[in-house]
Amino acid sequence: MSVNERTTDTFHLSTTDLHSAVTAYLAGLGCSADAATAVASVVTMAEIDGAKSHGVFRLPGYAASLRSGKVNKNSQPAVTLSTGGLLAVDGDRGFAPAALEQFRNRFCEVTNAQGIAALALKNVFHFSALWADVEWLCRQGLVAMAFTNYVPYVAPAGGTKPIYGTNPMAFGWPRPSGDPMIFDQASSVMARGDLSLAARAGHDVALGTGIDKAGNPTTSPQEILEGAMLTFGGYKGSNIALMVELLAGPLIGENLSFESELEDNADGGPPRGGQFLLAVSPSRLSPDAGTRAERLFEYLGRQAGTRLPASRRYANREIAQRDGVWIERSAANLLGFN
Amino acid sequence: MSVNERTTDTFHLSTTDLHSAVTAYLAGLGCSADAATAVASVVTMAEIDGAKSHGVFRLPGYAASLRSGKVNKNSQPAVTLSTGGLLAVDGDRGFAPAALEQFRNRFCEVTNAQGIAALALKNVFHFSALWADVEWLCRQGLVAMAFTNYVPYVAPAGGTKPIYGTNPMAFGWPRPSGDPMIFDQASSVMARGDLSLAARAGHDVALGTGIDKAGNPTTSPQEILEGAMLTFGGYKGSNIALMVELLAGPLIGENLSFESELEDNADGGPPRGGQFLLAVSPSRLSPDAGTRAERLFEYLGRQAGTRLPASRRYANREIAQRDGVWIERSAANLLGFN
Repeated sequence: MSVNERTTDTFHLSTTDLHSAVTAYLAGLGCSADAATAVASVVTMAEIDGAKSHGVFRLPGYAASLRSGKVNKNSQPAVTLSTGGLLAVDGDRGFAPAALEQFRNRFCEVTNAQGIAALALKNVFHFSALWADVEWLCRQGLVAMAFTNYVPYVAPAGGTKPIYGTNPMAFGWPRPSGDPMIFDQASSVMARGDLSLAARAGHDVALGTGIDKAGNPTTSPQEILEGAMLTFGGYKGSNIALMVELLAGPLIGENLSFESELEDNADGGPPRGGQFLLAVSPSRLSPDAGTRAERLFEYLGRQAGTRLPASRRYANREIAQRDGVWIERSAANLLGFN
Repeated sequence: MSVNERTTDTFHLSTTDLHSAVTAYLAGLGCSADAATAVASVVTMAEIDGAKSHGVFRLPGYAASLRSGKVNKNSQPAVTLSTGGLLAVDGDRGFAPAALEQFRNRFCEVTNAQGIAALALKNVFHFSALWADVEWLCRQGLVAMAFTNYVPYVAPAGGTKPIYGTNPMAFGWPRPSGDPMIFDQASSVMARGDLSLAARAGHDVALGTGIDKAGNPTTSPQEILEGAMLTFGGYKGSNIALMVELLAGPLIGENLSFESELEDNADGGPPRGGQFLLAVSPSRLSPDAGTRAERLFEYLGRQAGTRLPASRRYANREIAQRDGVWIERSAANLLGFN
C-alpha cells in the first residue's frame, strides 16, 4: 500500500494529526510524554515514508507491551559508560526511540570530538526501523551505521532452524545539499513486517524468501512464519546476519536473538534487546568527502534503471507532507477516529 | 584447487620456503625488504588458507606494477592525521600491506585508548585480501572491519554497466581461545580472482554471477569479464557495494572505483586506492562479550549443515602448516623453482 492509496479500507489524515493521535494513544496507555512523542515520531515517519510495515501496523504490539507491563512506561534511560569514543546507555526497559532521542545529541558531540564513536544502547524494546536514527545523525553531518537483532526468525546458511533475528543494518551518508543517502535493510530476504502483511493479505511471496517447518522451500508466508526466513544472497547475507547479531548482542553485553525470545513474555510486542550505532565525522577525515561522494551519486544517476536507495522514501514523504496520509481503517479506529 | 591438490601441474614446497621465495622474488624486482616481506606474508597466507585467487596467482600483477614504476618500490608511509579515534596514513604509493604492517600496532593502541578507532589508509595499491588485516587485529583482542574498493567491475542493481569495484568487506570477531571468527567477502556474487580463474580454466559460472556487454544474463566467465559482474542478493548486496565504495573512497578522501580505473596505467597490477578499517575493543564495552559470543557459536554449531565462515580456511591452514602447499607450476617457475 502506498502512502496515497485511497480505498474504502483507508482513512485520511494529515501528518501532524497522525503524530498527535499516536502520541495521545500511547500516553493513554500510560506511556510517559517523552516516550510517547518519540515513538509517535518514528511510527509517523514510517507511515509518511511508505514503510508501512513499521507504521501504525505495529501499534497493537506497542500497546500489548505497555499493557503487559513488559515495557517500562516511565523509563529513565541513563549513561552507564562514557569514555573516549564509547557511549553506553541503559534504556531502563523503555522503548528504544525514547532513549535515543534523549542521548543522540550527546552521541553526536562525542563523534565530533573523537572523529568516530559508538553508541551501545542496552535494555530497550526496539520495534521501529533503524532509518530514523540514522537519518537524524546524517542531518548532523555524520556518516552513520545502526544494527539491531531480534527474536530468531532466520535460519543460517546451510541450516533449517531460525537462529538470527531479521537483523537489520542501516547505513547513511550526509549530503551537503538535500536529503541523506540511506539504506535500512534486513539481513533476511524480506522484512518480518512485510512477511506478516503478505500472510494477512493472503499473497504468496517469492521462492527463496523462506522455508517451512520441515526445511522445504515454500512461497506461503504463513508456512514461512511457522518455519524459517532465509538470508538475502545465501551465505554472504548469512554472514551479514551473524555480524549484526554479534554487534547488537555480545559486543554491547546484550542478548542474542534466541535469548531475547526465551526471555520474552510473548505478549505480541517487541522483545527486550539492544542496538548498536556507529558514527564517523567525514569532515574530520577528508575535507572533500562530500564532493567526492556527489561524483558517485551523479555517475550512478546517469545509468538508466538505477536509483539511490532512499529516493522512493523521500518521494513518498514529499507527497505525504503535502497531501497527508491514508492509513488502514482498523488503525484509525484504534487511534479513535471513526 | 585445494591446498593439498597434487597434480602434474603443481609444485610442492613448505610454507616457509614459499614465504622466502615470494619475498626474494619481489626484492629481486627492486621492492624494499619491508614491503617484500609484508606482501609475501599476505600472499603466503592466502595460499596456505586455500584462498588461491589471492595467492601466487597475483604475482604477475605485483611484478607488473613494480616494473612499470606505478608502485613506489621504496615507499615511506607516514601518518597524516592522528586525532581522537582517527588515524590516517598516506601509503606513499606503496603496497597496502607494507603501510599496514608499519602502522597496525599504533592503530591497535589508538583503539585500546579510545575504545573505537578508524584507520584511513590512502594512496596505496591493494591487491591482497582484507582477511589478513582483520585477523591480525582480532588476535590483539579487537573486533575489526575492513573495506576497500577497486576498479569498476560490478553493475549497480537495476543497471548494466560496471560502477562498483568488487568492493569486499571483512568482519572479524576475536575468540578467547582459538582462532578468530572472520568473513571476508566481495559485494559481487563471485570474487574477481575466482572469475578470472574460471575463465582461464574454461569453466562456466552460475547464472546470476554476471551479465554480458549487452546486459544479458550469461554463464560465460569471459563474457562477464567483458560485461559486468552482479552483486550478491540483488539490491541489498548493491547497497553493501555502495557503502563500501563510500567508506573506502570519499570518506577517506580517496578515489571512487571508476576514478581509480581512469588513473590506472593498465599494467595488469592493482590500481591506486584506499582502504578503511574500523576496530572496537569489546572488553571496553562489555566484560562478557566473549562468553556471550561463544554461546552463539555453540548454538550455531548444533545445527547440521552450518559452519562458521572461517572454519574452512583454518582447516586448510592446519593441513598446509603440516604438509606444505602445492602451488601452480607456472607460479613455481616464476619463483625460480624448476
